[in-house]
Amino acid sequence: MNQISLYDDVVTARERLAGEAHITPVLTSRTLDECTGASVFLKCENFQRMGAFKFRGAYNAISQLSAADRGRGVVAYSSGNHAQAVALVSKLLKTSATIVMPNNASTIKRQAAEGYGATIVTYDVEKESREVVAADLAEKHGRVMIPPFDHEHIIAGQGTVAAELVDAVPDLDMVLAPCGGGGLLSGTAVAVKGSNGNCKVIGVEPEVADDATRSFHTKTLQTVRNPPTIADGARTASLGNLTFPLILENVDDMKTVTEDAIKEAVRFLFYRMKLVVEPSGALGVAALLSGAVRAAGKIGVIISGGNIDAKTMCHIFGETSR
Amino acid sequence: MNQISLYDDVVTARERLAGEAHITPVLTSRTLDECTGASVFLKCENFQRMGAFKFRGAYNAISQLSAADRGRGVVAYSSGNHAQAVALVSKLLKTSATIVMPNNASTIKRQAAEGYGATIVTYDVEKESREVVAADLAEKHGRVMIPPFDHEHIIAGQGTVAAELVDAVPDLDMVLAPCGGGGLLSGTAVAVKGSNGNCKVIGVEPEVADDATRSFHTKTLQTVRNPPTIADGARTASLGNLTFPLILENVDDMKTVTEDAIKEAVRFLFYRMKLVVEPSGALGVAALLSGAVRAAGKIGVIISGGNIDAKTMCHIFGETSR
Repeated sequence: MNQISLYDDVVTARERLAGEAHITPVLTSRTLDECTGASVFLKCENFQRMGAFKFRGAYNAISQLSAADRGRGVVAYSSGNHAQAVALVSKLLKTSATIVMPNNASTIKRQAAEGYGATIVTYDVEKESREVVAADLAEKHGRVMIPPFDHEHIIAGQGTVAAELVDAVPDLDMVLAPCGGGGLLSGTAVAVKGSNGNCKVIGVEPEVADDATRSFHTKTLQTVRNPPTIADGARTASLGNLTFPLILENVDDMKTVTEDAIKEAVRFLFYRMKLVVEPSGALGVAALLSGAVRAAGKIGVIISGGNIDAKTMCHIFGETSR
Repeated sequence: MNQISLYDDVVTARERLAGEAHITPVLTSRTLDECTGASVFLKCENFQRMGAFKFRGAYNAISQLSAADRGRGVVAYSSGNHAQAVALVSKLLKTSATIVMPNNASTIKRQAAEGYGATIVTYDVEKESREVVAADLAEKHGRVMIPPFDHEHIIAGQGTVAAELVDAVPDLDMVLAPCGGGGLLSGTAVAVKGSNGNCKVIGVEPEVADDATRSFHTKTLQTVRNPPTIADGARTASLGNLTFPLILENVDDMKTVTEDAIKEAVRFLFYRMKLVVEPSGALGVAALLSGAVRAAGKIGVIISGGNIDAKTMCHIFGETSR
């Protein structure tokens, strides 16, 4: 994939998203600056529509489908934010969405996607592969598959987060982004490097789901299987065919944080900044507060989403046992 | 008190607070607009320093003390946000603060004020009056009393919230503000009416702490005693000598909301807007979502603060019993 053309795709995606996605605010905190010794700028995608950056990629992908494709509808596999994003965008663009979810997905996640009018198809997590179930549905009904991260339109859409951030805050020294399948991180890196080659881009993963960090350092694709991290957006098995080379090429470093550091960051954002942030969304702040990333200068941090349920929040507070 | 001069005091207070208080963001939500049928603009004082609007009044008052007064220090009675505000401002302005708190105040609230360097003096809630304890301390040590709401400098400082809001969002039809002792509400009304006489100002109280609503409608000061509301900022016994006439003169109406409506608003702000808001801070949104205030046109809502502890938050989620 051509780097220069992908940066252009981010620029075009911004135009496509204008008036549809929110240009989310960039917030700062004296306390966070004092705690880190740096000037930290939080790009708050928890305030994005449906509560996470995933809206951007889904909109950028689905809005480029032909009228005929939209007539047949789309299919996606996800139990998280991508499901809600595809469901909401499909509603907005008047196409139909089928979402493949595990049969043990929480009621709240099913209802969120159903609330936007999507049809849910479940699969047996013990016996079936969600990719195969979704591909079968796509083939049988002529639906277009909207993958969660490994797709040029998805990556370009997610890159618009960082494009807005570097416009809002010039001369950043570093941008931190969470990493699951690498759609957000690769888009971030392309967007940042395309506008300011001197700004470092660092990906952050949970220590217990460090496949991308290992892949980055060994330059060979590594995987994890159902890692026991509270950061559900970072449980993805591995980087993708597109995101892995983009990350190798454009990302400066990868760092990991402990589960305790993630929880501490969620609490810090709640108590000190009054922000509701899901565990995956707090990975960048966790890296700064824990010292996993050495903080200095002007640092942009992508807060990827805020979809956390009451049970998880109270577990993080230590108010309930799970 | 002269109305025109008080509006001028709000204007002067803004200049005094420049660079010290945050100019807090005004946030909107498609979901909130859809739920209410109006265009709603949330003025987010939960993002203010120490987490609530109280910083403004305290700064406006303490910064106007003479060098000699600052040398002797200040005293305040509060177990909530005013305590933290006076403690933080005293630290910033290099004066010393003594805060009178009940002997049953939570450890977390004591620690917050002590963390800013204040000295805590406790009193026996069964036997003593906090006003008397504080007045004795003021007299004995020559300290200046900084009252929580019934003071021109406090009212003018709190009025800067609405002054910023009406600047950021022209042509508002209505502004909603929570009401405890009426410092925020009277300052809001003076600031709004001073710049746009056509904009209605409505105060919102918990149904079980409706002293200001009854005072407003009967034009006679009414009181409550330890009302059982989750909105701790609205438990104040009554309006003050200054705030009551200002509210009678400048406020268009007062409305009340149930405890369930307050909790529902806190949950809505958490789940749908990713904002951490304390129960008192959610009174305006509660009035809109419950229909206590008929929503139409462009409505500004003052979110007064975000200092909520984990126990209260999880209680509101229904995840723990209290």
